Amino acid sequence: MATILTLEQAIDLDALLAQVDTSGLTWKIQATDNKALPKIVGIGSLSDAKPNEIGFLANPRFFDLLQITQAGAVILPQRAIDALVKLALTLPFVIVQCEDPYLLYARISQWFEKTMRADEVRNIHEKAVIHPNVTLGKNVSIHALAVIEEDVVIADDVTIGAGSVIGKGAIIGKGTRLHANVTLYPRTEIGQYCIIHSGAVIGADGFGFAPDSTKDKGAWSKIAQLGKVIIEDDVEIGANTTVDRGALGNTLIHRGVKLDNQIMIGHNCEIGQYTAMAACVGVAGSTKVGERCTLAGAAMVSGHIEIGDDVHISGGSGVMSNIEKPGRYTGLWPIADHQTWQKNAATLANLYDLRRRIQQLEKLVNTKEST
Amino acid sequence: MATILTLEQAIDLDALLAQVDTSGLTWKIQATDNKALPKIVGIGSLSDAKPNEIGFLANPRFFDLLQITQAGAVILPQRAIDALVKLALTLPFVIVQCEDPYLLYARISQWFEKTMRADEVRNIHEKAVIHPNVTLGKNVSIHALAVIEEDVVIADDVTIGAGSVIGKGAIIGKGTRLHANVTLYPRTEIGQYCIIHSGAVIGADGFGFAPDSTKDKGAWSKIAQLGKVIIEDDVEIGANTTVDRGALGNTLIHRGVKLDNQIMIGHNCEIGQYTAMAACVGVAGSTKVGERCTLAGAAMVSGHIEIGDDVHISGGSGVMSNIEKPGRYTGLWPIADHQTWQKNAATLANLYDLRRRIQQLEKLVNTKEST
Amino acid sequence: MATILTLEQAIDLDALLAQVDTSGLTWKIQATDNKALPKIVGIGSLSDAKPNEIGFLANPRFFDLLQITQAGAVILPQRAIDALVKLALTLPFVIVQCEDPYLLYARISQWFEKTMRADEVRNIHEKAVIHPNVTLGKNVSIHALAVIEEDVVIADDVTIGAGSVIGKGAIIGKGTRLHANVTLYPRTEIGQYCIIHSGAVIGADGFGFAPDSTKDKGAWSKIAQLGKVIIEDDVEIGANTTVDRGALGNTLIHRGVKLDNQIMIGHNCEIGQYTAMAACVGVAGSTKVGERCTLAGAAMVSGHIEIGDDVHISGGSGVMSNIEKPGRYTGLWPIADHQTWQKNAATLANLYDLRRRIQQLEKLVNTKEST
Repeated sequence: MATILTLEQAIDLDALLAQVDTSGLTWKIQATDNKALPKIVGIGSLSDAKPNEIGFLANPRFFDLLQITQAGAVILPQRAIDALVKLALTLPFVIVQCEDPYLLYARISQWFEKTMRADEVRNIHEKAVIHPNVTLGKNVSIHALAVIEEDVVIADDVTIGAGSVIGKGAIIGKGTRLHANVTLYPRTEIGQYCIIHSGAVIGADGFGFAPDSTKDKGAWSKIAQLGKVIIEDDVEIGANTTVDRGALGNTLIHRGVKLDNQIMIGHNCEIGQYTAMAACVGVAGSTKVGERCTLAGAAMVSGHIEIGDDVHISGGSGVMSNIEKPGRYTGLWPIADHQTWQKNAATLANLYDLRRRIQQLEKLVNTKEST
Repeated sequence: MATILTLEQAIDLDALLAQVDTSGLTWKIQATDNKALPKIVGIGSLSDAKPNEIGFLANPRFFDLLQITQAGAVILPQRAIDALVKLALTLPFVIVQCEDPYLLYARISQWFEKTMRADEVRNIHEKAVIHPNVTLGKNVSIHALAVIEEDVVIADDVTIGAGSVIGKGAIIGKGTRLHANVTLYPRTEIGQYCIIHSGAVIGADGFGFAPDSTKDKGAWSKIAQLGKVIIEDDVEIGANTTVDRGALGNTLIHRGVKLDNQIMIGHNCEIGQYTAMAACVGVAGSTKVGERCTLAGAAMVSGHIEIGDDVHISGGSGVMSNIEKPGRYTGLWPIADHQTWQKNAATLANLYDLRRRIQQLEKLVNTKEST
Repeated sequence: MATILTLEQAIDLDALLAQVDTSGLTWKIQATDNKALPKIVGIGSLSDAKPNEIGFLANPRFFDLLQITQAGAVILPQRAIDALVKLALTLPFVIVQCEDPYLLYARISQWFEKTMRADEVRNIHEKAVIHPNVTLGKNVSIHALAVIEEDVVIADDVTIGAGSVIGKGAIIGKGTRLHANVTLYPRTEIGQYCIIHSGAVIGADGFGFAPDSTKDKGAWSKIAQLGKVIIEDDVEIGANTTVDRGALGNTLIHRGVKLDNQIMIGHNCEIGQYTAMAACVGVAGSTKVGERCTLAGAAMVSGHIEIGDDVHISGGSGVMSNIEKPGRYTGLWPIADHQTWQKNAATLANLYDLRRRIQQLEKLVNTKEST
């Protein structure tokens, strides 16, 4: 459970839902048996919510938990309500009917986070280091020991965490929040309402070198990375994720993209809108990923390829060539006990030979058959 | 070799061992032939230790190095001493008999590190930024440009490295050391005697989004991450490792867990005590890993699964479902020269068809046999 | 395209090439039809360069782009010029003949980067925190809120980015640039003309623990990491990459090595000169990688092994044993649609059994054949 409010701050269920952003959603409180509406202090999963918390049924798999949950209110779709009615149980909770409980939960969670931040001090900390030639919007909050370099433009309602460094000429859009110890290289552009987590580095040099045998056998000559990174609106970037600047053109992250922690996006990549990548994913340089794709954890994508829209890559899979067709793609040696793996791996070492032997057998057997 | 002390600081072997924490261990100096005890300045491997350094035989495989080592003293188990006696060699080193040489080496290495740090200045640097409403224990050391936010509680003997940011309401237990540029998000709890390396980010938002088609096709609505991270005592966390805060409940790292660099622990994970993970491991959200497990480098674990106690995952392997039984598990395509790989990979593309063809052959051959 | 200069700053093509470091290269401007030399403001790829930008043909595959490029000048090898002449086209661009267009492009890109930095303020920022007992060379630039600890030695022309922390006794060679928020642990040594990107952590503790059953079942005792990291000249280290200090000896990165982002180099590794590693690579402890190797993205190398010179590891491949012979090596399950993968993975689970069945069939069929 996540208890956010004190008992004194507890809010009536109907008042809570009236304050939550429910745009696009329809919902209705169904207080069974004239039960009084609970006062809510937080959210919980069905298995650990308390009587002053609200729960939700996002997956029919957990239907049985409704019979034991302590939650004071539960968000349910009509189908689950109907099923409950058939069971003729005395329910200890108030029902909030909504056909998308998971989305309503998301919106309520956002309300609680905003409430937690209500007392957040918003100012320019006296120990931040801000170049005199910087453009700051209204209601900007810059925490201690952040560094804002020359020519940076920061829009209204932006928050810059402690220790973050904003390189020369970077631009940050309205309402964006950088947590502590984020680094933006010079000229990086971040859109509106983005969230960038600690340790993220946006705009470091892409990895480009030309072989330079004029200096030494095997020596490299650096290709200066002259482009930049452009991140559109509503993008979230996880902790310690890196997005490299373009070599000549730019690296482009479209609106609504969600990147988890420890991700690497190479130079000159373009990531389509609403694509989501789980932790430890790597996308090599100049690759274009379509819209609404998902890359599960530790998926790896080669450079200079294209992945179309609505492609879903399973965790740990490596993508080495273009994928045009929407769908789910997987490539991963299934784990097994070590001895089994050893035997299979040893067999694999000559897999193509096995095929040859099968072909030979087929020829022999078929010849005999026909004789 | 690691020469730590100057010649003036050199310490007699028996004085050294008397100062080292040898609790739980038994050891004995066996100065053969009334050889004088060496004065020790550091530790070295058998192959490169100097006459004023102490070495150790942790692996019988390296027994032969005893005949060439320059070490002034060597930690040996009785079995190795007996074997040496049989060889009737004149040994240039003093023997320290101990049945667990590797552990005694570990304890001696800790003594040297403590000695190196003896002159460490412990104070609150005047250029640290500490909120007035903070609780500080005794003997706390906070380096330059660390930021300690409101309501943070720091116990005795804690060290906070330069540039680290401790978020609002975080708690740090006795004797814990944060190196430079660590980030703790608000409300993170760290136990006693932990070590957290530079670039680690503890408590960033877990990766949670609900599809929100009310906004746009494919759009995501953020699930605010309202839980926190709790790290128990004696945990070490490597450089640039990230541990995310829970969505509703907490992410929990039990006592004695050791995490190497570049690791990602997803939200709501629970990692059992004494489990160790090598670099680049990823554990997706809500997964529970048991006690005393080891995950070798770059192992990847899916979300919402359970791994039992004493499970050992080989490097680069992906775990996609529960593992209950203790033992070693592996899944990794064995590397080969590229041409061989290409042939095997091409065959793999229709592996299930090969099985079908074998079944067919078996039927045909067996039919004929029986006719 | 990357437009670097303003129109007022535009430089004549011949003046540009005269200023670029073209040592070891031969080149010649071939202004066809007495065409005037263009004034250059930037570099572009053939497909998006503008008339005041210079392009290059690094790959014969893109030859056709020469017929549509808008570039004002293009670097071409003689072979491509001859091919163009045969086509008898009116070329809108000036030809710069050079047999290594990619290398000349690299050198020109460096000139543009240097030019962009010409107005960079070089000084010791008043808000940097520098221990009084530090050795600083000439023309050193230390940005705001960097921390330079005791006994650090910084050579001429070094740049330290904002928020970087240089640990006690570290040494940084001439001309090296650390970007913002880099962390060097105490005693780390960096050579000349290196580039270290933000979030990189050099010199954190290697991952070493001895099992310590004297404390608890499964408990670990830390092996203090008493060595250091030594990085030679001309090394580049990417964002959020980590290189751990040695346990007893040192971790050694030889000259000219290029490491991309999110890489992990374990303790006591030795990486040979000019070896390049793409992002997300991991090399476990005590492994030795030869000279002029390349490790593509997410390749993983086990600990305590040796890879010889001129070995090339494909992306996502795991190296578990020594590789002596130069060449390309690969190990990766080829990605497929999920259903196909499932069928192949299920077959793989008993691959060694398939081999047995084939052997049996061969025996049966051959027996019959011989009868």
